[in-house]
Amino acid sequence: MATNAPSRVKKLINDVANVVPESLAGLGRAHPDLVKIDSANLVVLRAGGPRPGKVSLVSGGGSGHEPLHGGFVGLGMLDAACAGHVFTSPVPDQMEAATRAVDGGAGVLHIVKNYTGDVLNFQLAAELVAGDVEVATVVTNDDVAVQDSLYTAGRRGVGGTVLVEKIAGAHAEAGGSLAAVAATAVKVNANVRSMGMALTSCVVPAAGTPTFDLPDDEIEIGIGIHGEPGRRREKIAPVDDIARMLVDPIVSDLGLERGERVLAFVNGMGGTPLIELYVAFNSVAKLLDQRGIEIGRSLVGNYITSLEMAGFSVSLLRLDDSLAELWDAPVHTPALRWGV
Amino acid sequence: MATNAPSRVKKLINDVANVVPESLAGLGRAHPDLVKIDSANLVVLRAGGPRPGKVSLVSGGGSGHEPLHGGFVGLGMLDAACAGHVFTSPVPDQMEAATRAVDGGAGVLHIVKNYTGDVLNFQLAAELVAGDVEVATVVTNDDVAVQDSLYTAGRRGVGGTVLVEKIAGAHAEAGGSLAAVAATAVKVNANVRSMGMALTSCVVPAAGTPTFDLPDDEIEIGIGIHGEPGRRREKIAPVDDIARMLVDPIVSDLGLERGERVLAFVNGMGGTPLIELYVAFNSVAKLLDQRGIEIGRSLVGNYITSLEMAGFSVSLLRLDDSLAELWDAPVHTPALRWGV
Repeated sequence: MATNAPSRVKKLINDVANVVPESLAGLGRAHPDLVKIDSANLVVLRAGGPRPGKVSLVSGGGSGHEPLHGGFVGLGMLDAACAGHVFTSPVPDQMEAATRAVDGGAGVLHIVKNYTGDVLNFQLAAELVAGDVEVATVVTNDDVAVQDSLYTAGRRGVGGTVLVEKIAGAHAEAGGSLAAVAATAVKVNANVRSMGMALTSCVVPAAGTPTFDLPDDEIEIGIGIHGEPGRRREKIAPVDDIARMLVDPIVSDLGLERGERVLAFVNGMGGTPLIELYVAFNSVAKLLDQRGIEIGRSLVGNYITSLEMAGFSVSLLRLDDSLAELWDAPVHTPALRWGV
Repeated sequence: MATNAPSRVKKLINDVANVVPESLAGLGRAHPDLVKIDSANLVVLRAGGPRPGKVSLVSGGGSGHEPLHGGFVGLGMLDAACAGHVFTSPVPDQMEAATRAVDGGAGVLHIVKNYTGDVLNFQLAAELVAGDVEVATVVTNDDVAVQDSLYTAGRRGVGGTVLVEKIAGAHAEAGGSLAAVAATAVKVNANVRSMGMALTSCVVPAAGTPTFDLPDDEIEIGIGIHGEPGRRREKIAPVDDIARMLVDPIVSDLGLERGERVLAFVNGMGGTPLIELYVAFNSVAKLLDQRGIEIGRSLVGNYITSLEMAGFSVSLLRLDDSLAELWDAPVHTPALRWGV
């Protein structure tokens, strides 16, 4: 009748109830050499089973942030990823199944974004396997935008999580002990800060309507990856100005000084085209130039998303030689691959 | 005043006139080991200059399809990419500059999507370098949606172009002659077919308004990569049904038979989240299963886009051992990387 009342959600889906399992099935069909889908538990497992003697990495969280986490399962990164419903924490049973499935006898590191449900459920899962599997946990909380938020006590875990998973994964692949790999993950989290912004809302499939309202001429600075509120709303501005609103708090919070070297990560929220992400990267690079901060490594693309939200986040990781070497180490996952 | 009248286009840009040069600058800043930007000519060049004795590959076209083509410059793929304004062909001078810059004495292959402006301008560029550089040209025209269209005589070049660039690039890297590399490019184009669909329009920065109107409950089947009309409009439907509307014409046109093996490429148009692209890949995989067609290789992601258009395209490439081997060969570009 009214064009405002579509009969279905306008998305590439069959049934809102099956988005996550069908997406995981597609991941498995596209990358059978890399991943195996445990469809009963909605867990993405590294193909080939556990590696005896290797520390295994398990992450997970609500869906809707793809490729995070399932797209990061494979050599040199995660051994398993637990998928919750869209923007909803997975349950402890999933995390327990994943942890038991990947343990190669050297213990399992849980990488957990700091959201209350994720933290609680991973903790319960660790208790469920206690005595059988040695578990260490690192909680990522790199988002400088807000101190507490809708779903968190303390800062949110966002883009830095991708870097934690890559670098800790490389250390595990190189034979690090559980304590050493966990220490590397903690070190990355301690040296990375992030902040994001949104031009538009996203639409959760089961809701069918935008998560939040943002006027045509406004943007949200400090947005969360579930569309939860950030610091403030601003009028739409040139991306050079927007980038400054993100980079300044990051540089300040991280205490980055002239002459330091960073990994600069410009992440798309899902609905922003790559042509704009590279414009944004150019803005970030100019700001770092002005501050005398060297870009030692970079990553540009959609790696931790909020469905089709338009916008981007910036993450800066303070690099030393050890972190740079682990970053460069081979990785072979659906979403991140080099050296192999 | 009215929220429908924003003071600026709601995009991550500074100035609509500088979107392309600033995006190229960002590409250069993010990947200095891979590419060098000729900012006077808006050409992305492979870092390190021409390889003596290697056939070089040059492509290009209107911007707004990123990562195509600049994101495919590097080892095992393109040697240069010419960037036009958004959805506008580059000019012959750009193509001439690119061709001269990359020639290593073994000749240059122009890979041209079949759009009238691109074809004409690459032809003029080939004439401008005649006598200095040996040029061969392959025109891609893999889109089965329409026979002629707004910007073409004959079929449009779309997703198959990515596969042509990867596979011909591998052959050039392996030392193939200009005639042999051109023959490989022609072979890929002859064995690939594509078709796309859109859920939403895109917004060209200089226009600031949607390229076309699509009601909230309708989709466009057979859409072009500039939002140009496809075959028909349909009511929004389950993605299993949409995938069938794309796969059936491709399979039929390519004459794919039970027992054949393909590379299955599910490409995002720019604004569709990855979670949906994998649901779509699953739909495509089920359809190929039903037809007894084996998925030998796969590619899922945003590789030839239409700014922030939501939707996807399917490309199927009939594989033989030689094409599969060239597909698997090392590639190192901003957007596609493996084996190195």
